[in-house]
Amino acid sequence: MDAAPCIAVDAMGGDTGPAAMIAGLARAHRRDSKMHFIVYGDENLIEAELAKHPKAARAVDIVHTSEAIGASEKPTQAIRRARTTSMGMAINAVKDGKANAALSGGNTGALMAMSKLALRTMPGIDRPALAALLPTLGDTDLVMLDLGANTECDAQNLVQFSVMGAAYARTVLGIAKPRVRLLNIGTEELKGTGELKEAAALLREADYLPLAFNGFIEGDQLSRGEVDVVVTDGFSGNIALKTAEGTARFVTDLLRRAFKSSIRSKAGFALSKPALELLKVHLDPNNHNGAVFLGLNGLVVKSHGGANPKGVANAIRVAAQMVANDITNKIGDDLDNFRAHAFNHEAA
Amino acid sequence: MDAAPCIAVDAMGGDTGPAAMIAGLARAHRRDSKMHFIVYGDENLIEAELAKHPKAARAVDIVHTSEAIGASEKPTQAIRRARTTSMGMAINAVKDGKANAALSGGNTGALMAMSKLALRTMPGIDRPALAALLPTLGDTDLVMLDLGANTECDAQNLVQFSVMGAAYARTVLGIAKPRVRLLNIGTEELKGTGELKEAAALLREADYLPLAFNGFIEGDQLSRGEVDVVVTDGFSGNIALKTAEGTARFVTDLLRRAFKSSIRSKAGFALSKPALELLKVHLDPNNHNGAVFLGLNGLVVKSHGGANPKGVANAIRVAAQMVANDITNKIGDDLDNFRAHAFNHEAA
Repeated sequence: MDAAPCIAVDAMGGDTGPAAMIAGLARAHRRDSKMHFIVYGDENLIEAELAKHPKAARAVDIVHTSEAIGASEKPTQAIRRARTTSMGMAINAVKDGKANAALSGGNTGALMAMSKLALRTMPGIDRPALAALLPTLGDTDLVMLDLGANTECDAQNLVQFSVMGAAYARTVLGIAKPRVRLLNIGTEELKGTGELKEAAALLREADYLPLAFNGFIEGDQLSRGEVDVVVTDGFSGNIALKTAEGTARFVTDLLRRAFKSSIRSKAGFALSKPALELLKVHLDPNNHNGAVFLGLNGLVVKSHGGANPKGVANAIRVAAQMVANDITNKIGDDLDNFRAHAFNHEAA
Repeated sequence: MDAAPCIAVDAMGGDTGPAAMIAGLARAHRRDSKMHFIVYGDENLIEAELAKHPKAARAVDIVHTSEAIGASEKPTQAIRRARTTSMGMAINAVKDGKANAALSGGNTGALMAMSKLALRTMPGIDRPALAALLPTLGDTDLVMLDLGANTECDAQNLVQFSVMGAAYARTVLGIAKPRVRLLNIGTEELKGTGELKEAAALLREADYLPLAFNGFIEGDQLSRGEVDVVVTDGFSGNIALKTAEGTARFVTDLLRRAFKSSIRSKAGFALSKPALELLKVHLDPNNHNGAVFLGLNGLVVKSHGGANPKGVANAIRVAAQMVANDITNKIGDDLDNFRAHAFNHEAA
């Protein structure tokens, strides 16, 4: 492998076939022309899209397959088709050392199951987690995990997620000692489940880790910009993420109604439009596209199925940053450190 | 007790002492002058506030106590002070038949523990749940429960919450057959925890109940106006509620920044102001104040600690509607119905 990252792309996973994936890839390539790509899927469809982006086409190898994982296909079925489907082949490219990261906009459950089977979890990690960036009022986004890979988690899982999330914040956001909190229904020590209390106790003791554990956080504080990493089980994380998305859309829908409610407010809208565009950019999920499966022996990035080319380019940028910063090894070092201390602690 | 509702008010629970509670009570009394109140707390402070509302003062009996439950007091400590604190005395007034409902803006955990101990759960209910109304894009609000009373719930709890939530929607929102969904991380039948799948199976069979069970709902669909009752465990419910509150505040904060970003957008804001006021009203948590503990042999309503007089008046209106519609007996009838069917089912 070269120094420049190579990304294995599942071209068939998004909601609209390869169009957005290829246009996004071209966009990412314009930003960094050293990148290259192996694109898996229907050769004819991929070539038709690449014809629109001749410069990027030169950085692409196509591997043809007519099989793709369906949006509602069960993970247990999908894993049997790992060798023949565009999603499975993209993941295997990472496993075989042909690519540094895989990208897919397809079925999350299938992507997770296939990635776990092909790449296996890192030593010290019991379960991988899905992590993504969320917008805040602060200067940087926050990292949140798990967003749906694990419905139920124990204290050890939550500690491991904290280590992985902090590594994400260090490598992608450039924060030396990220502020980490556990999502809970109150900030007092006695609140929440037994798993949360135990995880908090473990993290409070692990002061040698490159993170600052600040206790619990409630859902209404997520976007205040006062935390860098929020850790939770996959059920609560998915509920929080989707509720935040839905509420942002709800408020902007109400805003649209308000602006349309009178001629006067329509004029007000016309005047405010450039400023409101900034709001739109801030809330556009495409600017936060690219959720990462952390804790595997290799990088897999999930793009939103409905992402536009800008969104796909963002997901590719996330993957490239993680490759460049060698996040997998950084997580490994932190985990070794954690286990060595825990062992000494037990021995003492 | 008279036909007009009598509300027992804990005057000392809110963040600002009795001021907002008494002003809210006066506001509710202006809307319905037949209501009356027993107000518990520091007599001098209460009388000073009531002096500003001479009409409402005539509908109030004051019961003095100098003891109040602290905001961070543990529920286990609080229950020992039920007889002497303003919160405990207000709940006991419901137990003793002196009032139709109790209202407090204090410590939720203490209110829950004291209410459960004094009023006990209804036959057929294992655990009470905290329910409240959330705004939607539709014509009516939605009822969501549990919002934090029970960190973990089994399938039977979720079924009982569905019955109680539907009774809430029928009595307060006037929907004959409310659409009920379980909050989950996907809408396919195989998604989520074992408890959710089992609850869904039970609800699908219970087609004799006065509700339409429509399966699962994800967090991003909550505010679309396509569901009347959303049921979840108290952990996820609290995360969803608070994330929604936080996100709404986040978007309006961004909006405020956008409007202030240039002279042009400031002018746009001035023009749009009347329309934007409607947005503000729609999102104001005071317009949705009043969470109810359902499933007890008596009504207890929780007002937000920071509610303003309008918010307090709203919480009192919720309590009065539930009293007028006899929600406790309606829930009891539905539960009897459910158990009779379940029993026949088992016997068959």
